[in-house]
Amino acid sequence: MLQSKLIGDTKKEWPNEASVVSHGVLLKGGYIKQMATGIYTLMPLGKKVIAKIENIIREEMNKVGAQEILMPVVATKKLWDMSGRYDSVGSELLRFKDRNNTEMVLSMTHEEATVYSLLSEASSYQKYPFSVYQLQTKFRDEARPRAGLIRVREFTMKDAYSFHTSQESLDEEYDKFFEAYNNIYKRVGIPQVVAVASDTGIMGGSGAHEFMLLCDSGEDKIVHCSSCNYNANMEVAYTTKYDVVNKKEEEIEKIYTPNIKTIEDLKEYTKLETCNLGKAVIYKRLDTGKTIIVFLRADREVNETKLRNLLKVDDEALVPKKEEKDDNIVYGFVGPVNLNTDAQVIYDKSLENEKSLVFGANEKDYHLKGVNILRDVGKVDFVDVAKVLETDYCPICNKKELTISNGIEVGNIFKLGDKYTKMLNMTYSDENGKTHFPLMGCYGIGIGRLFASVLEARATENKLNLPPSIAPFDIHICPLDYTKNEQVKKLADDIYELLKLNGYDVLLDDRNKNAGVKFADSDLISAPIRITVSKRNIENGDLLEIKVYDNDETTLVTKDELVKYIEDKRKEWVF
Amino acid sequence: MLQSKLIGDTKKEWPNEASVVSHGVLLKGGYIKQMATGIYTLMPLGKKVIAKIENIIREEMNKVGAQEILMPVVATKKLWDMSGRYDSVGSELLRFKDRNNTEMVLSMTHEEATVYSLLSEASSYQKYPFSVYQLQTKFRDEARPRAGLIRVREFTMKDAYSFHTSQESLDEEYDKFFEAYNNIYKRVGIPQVVAVASDTGIMGGSGAHEFMLLCDSGEDKIVHCSSCNYNANMEVAYTTKYDVVNKKEEEIEKIYTPNIKTIEDLKEYTKLETCNLGKAVIYKRLDTGKTIIVFLRADREVNETKLRNLLKVDDEALVPKKEEKDDNIVYGFVGPVNLNTDAQVIYDKSLENEKSLVFGANEKDYHLKGVNILRDVGKVDFVDVAKVLETDYCPICNKKELTISNGIEVGNIFKLGDKYTKMLNMTYSDENGKTHFPLMGCYGIGIGRLFASVLEARATENKLNLPPSIAPFDIHICPLDYTKNEQVKKLADDIYELLKLNGYDVLLDDRNKNAGVKFADSDLISAPIRITVSKRNIENGDLLEIKVYDNDETTLVTKDELVKYIEDKRKEWVF
Repeated sequence: MLQSKLIGDTKKEWPNEASVVSHGVLLKGGYIKQMATGIYTLMPLGKKVIAKIENIIREEMNKVGAQEILMPVVATKKLWDMSGRYDSVGSELLRFKDRNNTEMVLSMTHEEATVYSLLSEASSYQKYPFSVYQLQTKFRDEARPRAGLIRVREFTMKDAYSFHTSQESLDEEYDKFFEAYNNIYKRVGIPQVVAVASDTGIMGGSGAHEFMLLCDSGEDKIVHCSSCNYNANMEVAYTTKYDVVNKKEEEIEKIYTPNIKTIEDLKEYTKLETCNLGKAVIYKRLDTGKTIIVFLRADREVNETKLRNLLKVDDEALVPKKEEKDDNIVYGFVGPVNLNTDAQVIYDKSLENEKSLVFGANEKDYHLKGVNILRDVGKVDFVDVAKVLETDYCPICNKKELTISNGIEVGNIFKLGDKYTKMLNMTYSDENGKTHFPLMGCYGIGIGRLFASVLEARATENKLNLPPSIAPFDIHICPLDYTKNEQVKKLADDIYELLKLNGYDVLLDDRNKNAGVKFADSDLISAPIRITVSKRNIENGDLLEIKVYDNDETTLVTKDELVKYIEDKRKEWVF
Repeated sequence: MLQSKLIGDTKKEWPNEASVVSHGVLLKGGYIKQMATGIYTLMPLGKKVIAKIENIIREEMNKVGAQEILMPVVATKKLWDMSGRYDSVGSELLRFKDRNNTEMVLSMTHEEATVYSLLSEASSYQKYPFSVYQLQTKFRDEARPRAGLIRVREFTMKDAYSFHTSQESLDEEYDKFFEAYNNIYKRVGIPQVVAVASDTGIMGGSGAHEFMLLCDSGEDKIVHCSSCNYNANMEVAYTTKYDVVNKKEEEIEKIYTPNIKTIEDLKEYTKLETCNLGKAVIYKRLDTGKTIIVFLRADREVNETKLRNLLKVDDEALVPKKEEKDDNIVYGFVGPVNLNTDAQVIYDKSLENEKSLVFGANEKDYHLKGVNILRDVGKVDFVDVAKVLETDYCPICNKKELTISNGIEVGNIFKLGDKYTKMLNMTYSDENGKTHFPLMGCYGIGIGRLFASVLEARATENKLNLPPSIAPFDIHICPLDYTKNEQVKKLADDIYELLKLNGYDVLLDDRNKNAGVKFADSDLISAPIRITVSKRNIENGDLLEIKVYDNDETTLVTKDELVKYIEDKRKEWVF
């Protein structure tokens, strides 16, 4: 197409609101336009890239035999009640009433809808295994949309669901999807994505992986062992072996610590290291009202996901407790000894073999030195609710080679088991006529976030550097002095028609702009092949200057050589 | 693919809930599944057809140079306030609040969103004209969803918007879209769709057409002149010439009509014809509370769309008035003479030259004979608020050759003018640097309804009869005794692989079902080419029996002739 007609102007300046590079270049390049908090329009360039990503995903889904369907975004409360998620999911599930006062939701995921859609479609074991997928609009009322397309409220998602009569079949299909996902990341230009074990969260089920692009702008923390390649989201990462720091048993001693309520103050006051101290972190369950006190060594942090899983409590129902009157808790001075409370008390594994720590004395302005939980509290359960540290042992190979990096989740896959089929009563008959609930897997990729992640991995502030597989145009013709020089215009127009005839999607910069502007825009448009048409090169024998995306050098070819040159180049690039 | 794996079972019985043929065959064939009132899942077959329809639409949109974008379904009240439509549109606009209590809507159309998305993208006249389109999820909270995909609440729509610096440019683009729409209807298999002049409704603007498929199940009424081809939706159809029935002037005479409140009773009581009577139809405006009394000749009906346009009142704000106390209206006996009311009174054109009609006397149990409005009421405005009748004169050629048919609206196009650009303050500078509001056109097609309409035109209760352009599969192989006869299985498998290699989308019925079931399902799946593989034809020289969709006869070909035969057939079918 002619660039003068392209809707979505590039901006000269870096957008103020951009917190990450993908957000910035998408705005700067005219790919997206913000409509409301976390809600965007895809402009023509953005839509073109997204369509190519969607096609790649479609191809990979079809390859594993998934059948495409389309489910609605609006669902009834009744449907979500079937799984109990109408109540259990927090306010990210947008609830509303229709004109007849029927309670509805905007779907953020489609387990219930899929099972309901297929309820009577697979009543014999012979149909199994099978899977369906869709590319569909979802809405998740995020508390904090951020970073452009990374965390939005309305988004297109590819979600797939597989159905099985045995765990082996589910495991097999799961592996197929796993591979399909790796293919997808490769084909869109981020082969470096890694799969990490993850939390099953609101989905339930027996196992899950997230696909993570490691990059600074990611919100997730990924634990990686460089010795054995163990990968896990911090949310579920664990360690089994601890170095004991305080090995020497001491007598308990009550010490006066006037107004010393924080670990920092206590360190300074006692001249001890953080690892010589214990701490209490206090939560409240909003569902039961109960108080939860977690004790751990002071150099560790509570891993709230692990804690929630332990307590079987929903995301939003567990919050840090604020000081309350009459709850028998001496805030700032809480410790395991002489604790007189009906709160649920949890002891982290980091305390198990520590013989002597400083804890609060449960008395204003006093702490206890020399606390040994086993000796002073008794035989308690030590459970794993702390965040893994880079200094910890790998739970698989027991080496101390962990690193923790930021990552963006670009996909996830879950083994759901029969949670949803059971709750919605979807059954099949086996060979003997006995009925069972099928097992399910589910497999999601957010399309917009995937696009943004490609940019996080590849783009700079001036250049998108998209791979040919998802670039908005195949070829960008940048003629210099197009509007002023007849020869340039003629050659540019000729090759524009020629390349279109050869089936390429070509953008011709027919604008009256100088070379600097044209090349800057071209870097933002990111076609893998740029052809510069200039007076100088015409004079040097009707030559065209070609630059390809993965190489900074330019090549001069004649018009006659052009199509063959491009054909060969594109053959080198496997999509 | 293998039919045993296809998700979406056919049903033997005609679905009880089906009110029209498209609804029935879509359920019976396993194309759709209802999720809630007016909300459906597209099952694999349905999704395949819809995808093909969308591709055709995309091709035609790209051909007119429209650029694809994607806007969100969730929008803010703030955006809809910019055009005033947050308040003016009725409860079909679904309003809700997000987690931050921000008022939002589910978009049912995207004029506001388009202008907002493009606000700063076309500030120079040089960019014009241009157009954008999307294929996108919409929600319209219909009071009465009905007839499967014909009238739903959640739907995918292709909506396009064009922008112009002159009326001529808008007119030109409008004509291009007009032609593109006709191409679309031809290509999906309903070339008989007609364009009719239509009401601009909530869109505003200077002119509009609806594309109508004439069929009994349609909700719209279409007026057609078989002499001059005048076509109009009943909502805006008009007539300019009236046959006067009651030409003889008479004296007014008060007659006793005890409890005679309806036209039927009055006819019987007075022994007059309906056209000798006058009637009053009483409405109430919900926005102002005002009463509206429409007088017209009793053989005519009020055209409420024309009335609403005349009153400039929104769809839902004008309702038939129920009897109220103390409003000075003598219900059942309302007439133009001695009418003592502050209601707004409207006289239909049908009364203009009538010299003698019977009307209510505005007194309980009395009517007046011989009423002549001009003489007895005075010089009033006679306006056109009645429905056109088949016996009326065509407003264009003045012949009496009107017919009125039912139609389904399968698309609409509007000349919007600058209504939205003005309200959202989108401007461009002309060659002299002067700023203007661009003119807009908008162009919509509901995808699901289009599919259903194709079925209304082509399907029977047992057969979808889709054209090759949108059939879910290219070729359906129906081997008889596939699971029992080795030879049949081998030949069927061979041609299945052969045809897939040749690029066709092939469905192989590998199920253990009898011929009757297989052919019945095949009619519902509606591939344009059916190949039957049977023991008998194998014995007769390895022959395959081919049936194509537009011909009831079958042809026998050998495996070697097969690909060529299909290639030739498909060349005959222009998509």
